[in-house]
Amino acid sequence: MSAPQIADLVAQARDGDPRAVARLITLVESNDPALPDLAAALAPHTGAAQVIGLTGSPGVGKSTITSELVRALRGAGRRVGVLAVDPSSPFSGGAILGDRVRMQDHATDPGVYIRSMSSRGHLGGLAAATPQAVRVLDGAGCDVVLVETVGVGQAEVEVATLADTTLVLLAPGMGDAIQAVKAGILEIADIFVVNKADRDGADAAYRDIQGMIGLGERAPGQWRPPVIKAVAARAEGIEEIVAAIDKHRQWLRTHDQLQRRREQRAAAEIEAIVLEALRERIEALDNGASLSDQAAAVAAGQQDPYTAADHILSSI
Amino acid sequence: MSAPQIADLVAQARDGDPRAVARLITLVESNDPALPDLAAALAPHTGAAQVIGLTGSPGVGKSTITSELVRALRGAGRRVGVLAVDPSSPFSGGAILGDRVRMQDHATDPGVYIRSMSSRGHLGGLAAATPQAVRVLDGAGCDVVLVETVGVGQAEVEVATLADTTLVLLAPGMGDAIQAVKAGILEIADIFVVNKADRDGADAAYRDIQGMIGLGERAPGQWRPPVIKAVAARAEGIEEIVAAIDKHRQWLRTHDQLQRRREQRAAAEIEAIVLEALRERIEALDNGASLSDQAAAVAAGQQDPYTAADHILSSI
Repeated sequence: MSAPQIADLVAQARDGDPRAVARLITLVESNDPALPDLAAALAPHTGAAQVIGLTGSPGVGKSTITSELVRALRGAGRRVGVLAVDPSSPFSGGAILGDRVRMQDHATDPGVYIRSMSSRGHLGGLAAATPQAVRVLDGAGCDVVLVETVGVGQAEVEVATLADTTLVLLAPGMGDAIQAVKAGILEIADIFVVNKADRDGADAAYRDIQGMIGLGERAPGQWRPPVIKAVAARAEGIEEIVAAIDKHRQWLRTHDQLQRRREQRAAAEIEAIVLEALRERIEALDNGASLSDQAAAVAAGQQDPYTAADHILSSI
Repeated sequence: MSAPQIADLVAQARDGDPRAVARLITLVESNDPALPDLAAALAPHTGAAQVIGLTGSPGVGKSTITSELVRALRGAGRRVGVLAVDPSSPFSGGAILGDRVRMQDHATDPGVYIRSMSSRGHLGGLAAATPQAVRVLDGAGCDVVLVETVGVGQAEVEVATLADTTLVLLAPGMGDAIQAVKAGILEIADIFVVNKADRDGADAAYRDIQGMIGLGERAPGQWRPPVIKAVAARAEGIEEIVAAIDKHRQWLRTHDQLQRRREQRAAAEIEAIVLEALRERIEALDNGASLSDQAAAVAAGQQDPYTAADHILSSI
């Protein structure tokens, strides 16, 4: 796709055409050669959207909370984009997944854009693609972009670099509190939500996480993550979550943190693009310097992986 | 540490000195400059260990199953190494974590080496470090190396590239089955274990996962992942898991897959080393070409991230 065609699509997306938005995200997801043109076309129109990350283990009710947040934000007249990122899902292309039935409530609302994204097989790709997809939704005029990820671990940390505000969702009885500490989630969470708070163990989970937050050292003026109880399936606790997000945004603004987070996000984004470009160069090597030739030598014990890496580094 | 010192440590590790093994893994984990020397010293002694990956969501009982597998393998007279990989945990250094109490059963057994590993803050590092740590345990004479990871997503896929055989652990009532499909786990699992099979919903989870395996197309001779019910806390199902691992190993051997998997593992390992080296070069850039300068320009909307990436690519 040519640069003028990209510029047209961006203009249509800015006019609110959901198909143009969909096509632009597909370009991002498929790592289209036109991405640099797209990034250049979007750059002047980005930076206004509030980016909110949601993360938590499978089964904590991420989709339900996301859906209720969308409802609340729409009620306040805000345009909302939702990116549901599945780091290794084979599904993508905007499909509304089986367990996302609630999301269909918003499927006919022109003020909501919902999209699932996968890495389409190349893992490094998602780290580069997600921030570009956020830029598309930002450039298309979304006031808020919700980025939802599955899992505990690396994906969360990537959400945190991406978002202005990161919500970590827990549920009772899943051993989440200990896991949260292990996964370094205390450091990335701006807001904790204990969902399914009507179930046994909710108070214990609440106390556990409050206790762990209390243990952390915090300088004066530093943000202390609130812990909110919710029963998203009955829309309970959603107002409190929205209020906490607003309060965190105020804190970011008054403490010069919004700019800092956005520069960190840009740095991660640039680095991901650079590493992806280098990965492509590595894949394109041939003859004795190819990755598969070197790998065969290492697997056979004829060469160690560092010497093999040196060969490849000197070839790209 | 000099190359002769490394060679001494490797010799001590091969003699069964657990402190030497610990020091070598610490070198790996801290991305020590001596890693190329270590890799060269280990290369002639590696390739014999059977590498088994274990993965699953928080709360499915990974540690309990790992511990019972260690017991069974020790009963068969095999030397066992365990790497518990927490992609973003701040803890490391061989600490036995709070919920790993069962592992302490093996703490005094000289035929077992147990180690937790974290990324120590640099995320790309773990992808490079884990295979090196496996090499240390392999070179130190472990017959079997168990690699346990937390989370659903990218980490699993990395375990799968690393392991000869990958076990995916599920538990009833955690929405795991749907999540397993979403996370592409069907493609990476060689063996499924439904743990906590005495709980409500175990049969449903078992049927769900069997149904999904049945849906996949499979060429004649291709491996069909078995699904095993276990109650690891009562050591039930462990024999069946060990038998399935052995059967899968036989299948790998008779279908030329062991070699193929190990070459893939070597390729992933080499690529991770190359990308880590390039990442370090990026971090070391200064003046206007530095990542933080470029990131500030992108955050300010003065530059798009692809142009910024081009600047950095041309500087390294």
